[in-house]
Amino acid sequence: MEKITINKTATPKQKPTDFSKLGFGKIFTDHMFIMDYTKGKGWHDARIVPYGPLLFDPSTMIFHYGQGIFEGLKAYKTDDGRVLLFRPNKNLERVNVSNERLSIPHLDEATALEAIKAVVAIDKDWIPTAPGTSLYIRPFIIATDPQLGVHPSDTYKFIVILSPVGAYYPEGLNPVKIYVEDEYVRAVKGGIGFAKTPGNYAASIRAQVKADELHYTQVLWLDGVEKKYIEEVGTMNVFFKINGEVLTPALNGSILAGVTRDSCIALLKSWNIPVSERKISIQEIYDANANGTLEEIFGSGTAAVISPVGELNWDGNIIKINNGEIGKTSQKLYDTITGIQCGKLPDTMNWTVEVK
Amino acid sequence: MEKITINKTATPKQKPTDFSKLGFGKIFTDHMFIMDYTKGKGWHDARIVPYGPLLFDPSTMIFHYGQGIFEGLKAYKTDDGRVLLFRPNKNLERVNVSNERLSIPHLDEATALEAIKAVVAIDKDWIPTAPGTSLYIRPFIIATDPQLGVHPSDTYKFIVILSPVGAYYPEGLNPVKIYVEDEYVRAVKGGIGFAKTPGNYAASIRAQVKADELHYTQVLWLDGVEKKYIEEVGTMNVFFKINGEVLTPALNGSILAGVTRDSCIALLKSWNIPVSERKISIQEIYDANANGTLEEIFGSGTAAVISPVGELNWDGNIIKINNGEIGKTSQKLYDTITGIQCGKLPDTMNWTVEVK
Repeated sequence: MEKITINKTATPKQKPTDFSKLGFGKIFTDHMFIMDYTKGKGWHDARIVPYGPLLFDPSTMIFHYGQGIFEGLKAYKTDDGRVLLFRPNKNLERVNVSNERLSIPHLDEATALEAIKAVVAIDKDWIPTAPGTSLYIRPFIIATDPQLGVHPSDTYKFIVILSPVGAYYPEGLNPVKIYVEDEYVRAVKGGIGFAKTPGNYAASIRAQVKADELHYTQVLWLDGVEKKYIEEVGTMNVFFKINGEVLTPALNGSILAGVTRDSCIALLKSWNIPVSERKISIQEIYDANANGTLEEIFGSGTAAVISPVGELNWDGNIIKINNGEIGKTSQKLYDTITGIQCGKLPDTMNWTVEVK
Repeated sequence: MEKITINKTATPKQKPTDFSKLGFGKIFTDHMFIMDYTKGKGWHDARIVPYGPLLFDPSTMIFHYGQGIFEGLKAYKTDDGRVLLFRPNKNLERVNVSNERLSIPHLDEATALEAIKAVVAIDKDWIPTAPGTSLYIRPFIIATDPQLGVHPSDTYKFIVILSPVGAYYPEGLNPVKIYVEDEYVRAVKGGIGFAKTPGNYAASIRAQVKADELHYTQVLWLDGVEKKYIEEVGTMNVFFKINGEVLTPALNGSILAGVTRDSCIALLKSWNIPVSERKISIQEIYDANANGTLEEIFGSGTAAVISPVGELNWDGNIIKINNGEIGKTSQKLYDTITGIQCGKLPDTMNWTVEVK
């Protein structure tokens, strides 16, 4: 790739002192990576600049037609001071899956990885080290043509910003209460549900507000066609442990192929716990609960890693899972994944990538 | 409403001289309207300022989660120099339908109309008068919280920009060729299809690219559940004239309630032409073509007004409509709507609103 131009800030910001109050994605580091795309010229002008606002024409396409994609991954600092990324190549593969669906030009994955490494290296002193904290990395691409016709943009920006984060949910690892959503739909096959693109999140906000009003933390999405089959939970993939077997919805074209989902499946298999990726109806989960075989439910995602589910509400029918406590499998997955991420456990899967 | 602060440009731009080359949404006028929303304070700081780029933090929510809505309407200058808006109240009603689905705060419709009138009045010399031209008005709301948690934003901007436009399609009123899309889905009931929000347009771009590659102008969307029933054509509503009756898909929760669609229905009824809003399968259209009763197909929308359809391709099965020529009903609707819009025909429906 072309050389990254580096323009360091002359006025570094005050770093947060209280790591228990980081929240999620509210504080940003001193620098960001930017690269431009122009049709006929390709991606160009890779640069690291001080973090700060950018000028956008009010007709910029991302404001009107949502042609964009994003990713989320994390960097961790080990006890011996090394900086580790967790499976960045999986995120960068998915960038191009999302790009293809949104008609955004291909982004070279090696270039993007170099960009992420470079900006993380410059701001490595921002990586928090308290338990449960990390440096959240948000790469994103937005369409920047300043015009109002609906068409694929001829210009884009690829930007990487960094945020020291704590737990995504205030509950931390305590089990969350989930509302089974059967009115609003997140995505359907043939749509954009498998892409990490703003429109899916826009579609989800109203249901999240409804769940909040009903005092639930998140929603469980059902399929958009029959409203019978389980898709995702909030912004995470979802797993069920029934009678010793772990089930998760198959990648059907409407759900996101989560990196943490993939990591859970690989770990479970390595532990000889049977895992099945298939169609799962909400009725099946309630039946398993009724006959006493439903052991655990948990969500998986980069932001929360593992989020145990303690309660489901489907059309007023409320069930408690594992007495509202975190299950053994959920706990073991959380401990193992975060252990590998922080370099406390051996990286037997070869998942971490060091930032030198 | 509070008074609109006006800051006029000191350096007016050169207006376009060749009105045959306006295209759509590529040129913007000298001014724009902006109003901010802050939770607890409501909408505030209504102002007209010189058109130009604005600063946005890279973490701004609209870039990541697409929480936004927009509208499109037009202003026309009559032969005697009056400035007319076409049914702006319908667009502003729809703003709040969209806002509700996207969990965006309510926008007072009278305030928004005053804002549109004020900025159009200041830039009224930008309204083109050549046949087929008009001043396109793009009001939009974007979520502006600078943070990465998925939640309804606490801050927003409502912006109105203006663009002198020509025909939306290079074909003008010549019939367009339409590809019936049975792979990609635009929207589904329970989703965001009835809202005018960026995610719907993001979802549509890939299918539009496919249609372009196959040398079609637009796609005809089928329902996301059975891929049998007709939804919309490209970014327009769609009408069929069969055996003297006009059919259009019912507002089913996944299609947009178009203002031009509503105007077509009202005019057809006033002409005693039977109109039916109902579920229409693509097979029904092909059957009508086979038995010789399919008379016309046309799209309706603010950008193109009426766009006749001359050819359909459904899974390789190509049919020509009305010998590829514009039909009498399509032509009469176009002439009547544009006649009312430009003040050349009496406004019997009381649709136009004058900007003083």
